[in-house]
Amino acid sequence: MQHFTLLIHCKDQKGIIAAVTNFILKVEGNITYLDQHVDTIQNVFFMRLECELTNPAYDLISVKEDFKTTIATEFNMSWEFYNKDRKPKMGLFVSKYTHCLYDILGRYSSGELHVEIPLIISNHEDLRPIAEQFNIPFYHVPFTKDIKEEGEKRQIELLKEYNIDFIVLARYMQIITPRLIALYENKIINIHHSFLPAFPGAKPYHSAFKRGVKIIGATSHYVTEELDEGPIIDQDISRVSHINSVEDFIMKGKDLERIVLARAIKLHSERKMMIYCNKTVVFY
Amino acid sequence: MQHFTLLIHCKDQKGIIAAVTNFILKVEGNITYLDQHVDTIQNVFFMRLECELTNPAYDLISVKEDFKTTIATEFNMSWEFYNKDRKPKMGLFVSKYTHCLYDILGRYSSGELHVEIPLIISNHEDLRPIAEQFNIPFYHVPFTKDIKEEGEKRQIELLKEYNIDFIVLARYMQIITPRLIALYENKIINIHHSFLPAFPGAKPYHSAFKRGVKIIGATSHYVTEELDEGPIIDQDISRVSHINSVEDFIMKGKDLERIVLARAIKLHSERKMMIYCNKTVVFY
Amino acid sequence: MQHFTLLIHCKDQKGIIAAVTNFILKVEGNITYLDQHVDTIQNVFFMRLECELTNPAYDLISVKEDFKTTIATEFNMSWEFYNKDRKPKMGLFVSKYTHCLYDILGRYSSGELHVEIPLIISNHEDLRPIAEQFNIPFYHVPFTKDIKEEGEKRQIELLKEYNIDFIVLARYMQIITPRLIALYENKIINIHHSFLPAFPGAKPYHSAFKRGVKIIGATSHYVTEELDEGPIIDQDISRVSHINSVEDFIMKGKDLERIVLARAIKLHSERKMMIYCNKTVVFY
Amino acid sequence: MQHFTLLIHCKDQKGIIAAVTNFILKVEGNITYLDQHVDTIQNVFFMRLECELTNPAYDLISVKEDFKTTIATEFNMSWEFYNKDRKPKMGLFVSKYTHCLYDILGRYSSGELHVEIPLIISNHEDLRPIAEQFNIPFYHVPFTKDIKEEGEKRQIELLKEYNIDFIVLARYMQIITPRLIALYENKIINIHHSFLPAFPGAKPYHSAFKRGVKIIGATSHYVTEELDEGPIIDQDISRVSHINSVEDFIMKGKDLERIVLARAIKLHSERKMMIYCNKTVVFY
Repeated sequence: MQHFTLLIHCKDQKGIIAAVTNFILKVEGNITYLDQHVDTIQNVFFMRLECELTNPAYDLISVKEDFKTTIATEFNMSWEFYNKDRKPKMGLFVSKYTHCLYDILGRYSSGELHVEIPLIISNHEDLRPIAEQFNIPFYHVPFTKDIKEEGEKRQIELLKEYNIDFIVLARYMQIITPRLIALYENKIINIHHSFLPAFPGAKPYHSAFKRGVKIIGATSHYVTEELDEGPIIDQDISRVSHINSVEDFIMKGKDLERIVLARAIKLHSERKMMIYCNKTVVFY
Repeated sequence: MQHFTLLIHCKDQKGIIAAVTNFILKVEGNITYLDQHVDTIQNVFFMRLECELTNPAYDLISVKEDFKTTIATEFNMSWEFYNKDRKPKMGLFVSKYTHCLYDILGRYSSGELHVEIPLIISNHEDLRPIAEQFNIPFYHVPFTKDIKEEGEKRQIELLKEYNIDFIVLARYMQIITPRLIALYENKIINIHHSFLPAFPGAKPYHSAFKRGVKIIGATSHYVTEELDEGPIIDQDISRVSHINSVEDFIMKGKDLERIVLARAIKLHSERKMMIYCNKTVVFY
Repeated sequence: MQHFTLLIHCKDQKGIIAAVTNFILKVEGNITYLDQHVDTIQNVFFMRLECELTNPAYDLISVKEDFKTTIATEFNMSWEFYNKDRKPKMGLFVSKYTHCLYDILGRYSSGELHVEIPLIISNHEDLRPIAEQFNIPFYHVPFTKDIKEEGEKRQIELLKEYNIDFIVLARYMQIITPRLIALYENKIINIHHSFLPAFPGAKPYHSAFKRGVKIIGATSHYVTEELDEGPIIDQDISRVSHINSVEDFIMKGKDLERIVLARAIKLHSERKMMIYCNKTVVFY
Repeated sequence: MQHFTLLIHCKDQKGIIAAVTNFILKVEGNITYLDQHVDTIQNVFFMRLECELTNPAYDLISVKEDFKTTIATEFNMSWEFYNKDRKPKMGLFVSKYTHCLYDILGRYSSGELHVEIPLIISNHEDLRPIAEQFNIPFYHVPFTKDIKEEGEKRQIELLKEYNIDFIVLARYMQIITPRLIALYENKIINIHHSFLPAFPGAKPYHSAFKRGVKIIGATSHYVTEELDEGPIIDQDISRVSHINSVEDFIMKGKDLERIVLARAIKLHSERKMMIYCNKTVVFY
């Protein structure tokens, strides 16, 4: 038995759901999950479907080929079949903060994440011991304004060498280069330590403290060329008050960052998201 | 153009979605919303569908008849078509508390609720002025242990006279009789001022205070014969601390009660819920 | 027995608490609440104290005079005694939105708010019927760019005539003039329908929708000359997802606006806030 | 310079705050935090105070002795001085679940917790590798109904040997014996995976799923002889819906358990709690 996830989007038209479900019937698939969404403003149809192939006469490759030449063509669909039995490979970028790194590696070791983590890349040596503690290859790739090109080249080499499917920036404190962003379009997840679009850029907890907000937040999003402007994946918040110092904001914020980043990794790796018009459609 | 909402549940089987969407195609309907859920433990399939009928050749009555004799029979479905262009009639039961009553009538007057409120029934005279302020007929139906049968009889007479579709208990402090529950099965909504199943029964804020909880809650649910044991519709919570007195719990709780009850009224009146095995399936 | 609330702020110094509590002992007061806060960055001390005067030899006027010439002078304090037995008078400004108005008047009629509402001022006639429904004088004061001065003059006349202590803008859709702001410094409360500082200005729900946020918010704050930049009193949030339209954002937002504005009215009228450096210190 | 935290509770009386702050003035201490609470129902006064001793003439030992023989006696106080410069020693009990263990050890390694963790005790061998990964001594102490006494004896030996100040049960799946509870009264913290008092005892996520709740929770509390009835320290919640399976409840619950337990460890180790009448007074 093979399991796959199918993501579709196309112009909204009559009969799409009937066509897709009839197709699955034809290949004797068993739909275990189906959700769809229509963006009535953009007039776009989105669908997510999980399926088991129960008859060996139909395997994932032939089903995919059949789909491509029939339904997908007829409705002019953008689509993707994902083999659920294969874990996506995740590249982890860190700098000096330990909290998201420990959290991700703890979840990974506990089997909570449907990913493989073949390598950790950092612009500093500091976190090597943690990588070693969890037996994950650690690469120090220096990255500053002056050696950006060299750094980018080495990053891309490593990502290719390890066949990395998507990248997670676990409080990685450097800008990602446009070339890397283009190579991993909608596949680089960042955690920003504010409730975006409030407080983009550097030192958001300090800005939040200065403004006297009563709630702080964290936001996971895909990286695009515009800093902190990419599609938002998840957000969460925590109450603060006048008794909290900036240090308290940072401490409370760490819990938000851990959880909001972990949820994004789960959603991405379980293929529960589609991106359209700089927004995410999230099928929970 | 006619608008309807279709709710279905039946044993999970292959091909249901395809059959239903093919049926809608056949009657030239335009699906504006479709969501479905499979309870894999009970093996039950649930579906909610909103549709516009665009060809005058197919009207709601004929579509319903067609559905009944084809798909519904074939898959042995429980189903209901609701005319979206008709507002359900809601009977409001109150005792002496004003907060939920003001909240509901304010929302009603603002056009937030897809209901008509033809009458208010109370076991006390106290809230008559509020009903009059909002121009809604108010009936004082005394109800005590000794005159239960008489009270029940009068309640049922009034509900029939006004063609009431469903009942909302806005902090109505009397037990609903089994006969009335049977007449309005899964159509009586109560607000309980605790996070059920914690603190069922009387004086939950006092019990919560005594236990020293750090969070209080409110729960809207359908009324069944077992007190506070019916299907839960919505819940919400609010933080409390040692500085809060029972009076603070009650005051904070009022905001929870207002919102959790209002949400339940919206979900019920917009036909976004199905009930199965004493639980609600809520299609947001 | 007289009840008062005392708010103090001054440069942080050794011995303030001892001095204040010794003073209360001297006048035979009974402290029922005391909270204090030190802003260690600005080096400012804040204190809130509730007290009962039990010996008729000491009344509020003499205690105040004594405090002024002793402790207050010694520590160079900013301070205010509030008579708890007198409800502050609140002026309500509205335009065309009904939800906050109904909510405030419902709470007011239920006795939830420690205020008097002697008048409602609006730049439109639309909400007069609601004011009449609740028996509150309603004044239509036209206000547009062209007649700003005339409008401001009339507003101030009415506020003086009714001895208004503080103003609440319940979705009042006009700019408050600098002269009125100066007359009611830190006494005009606004509700903004976003999670400030995200989405200041007009149409925040539309901007939030466009940005694809996963959480929306509302913020109550004091009005200053900088639009949406005044001290934040309270904030709250609600989750949204890709299935929600702008209209859904607006509907969910209304519940946030109601609650966040009501909480601000309670905090202000119960003298639980102090303002410093464009922030609020809130003593819950 | 020495830093201490002082916790006091006693019958509420006039002049306590003045007496305590005058005492601190006398020993030339600098109060950096002061909060107090009066339980008006029980008529009990609570105070928490953080202080720096700046004059070497007054050290913690002499200040404590002075306090004991003066103020503490005069007002018949229960009180405790804690040296802030010493980290309390925390004993960690686990069984087979990894999520809380990884979370605590990650925070510990990051320096987020003001504790020392000298040992981990488990009734199974399974988690030894994690303890070794973080270089913390791990003791396998078998514990079943038949060898309860032997197990308890070994537990107490180890806790004494390592001078353990308080115990954290990070999803330790065995009952703590009355003797151990008595030895560590109000010093054993448990995490229960429900919103207490809802769903005490075993398998709360399964019960929550069965009841059809819309919100699940977790509760950290002190262990007393009555199972899941001890003073509640912190609670938090997460929304669930009909689409979530029991497995989803468990997965979402893990995040709650991590955070609610970590917060309890912080509050206890930073001496921010007092216990009275089976409730906690938490000074944030």
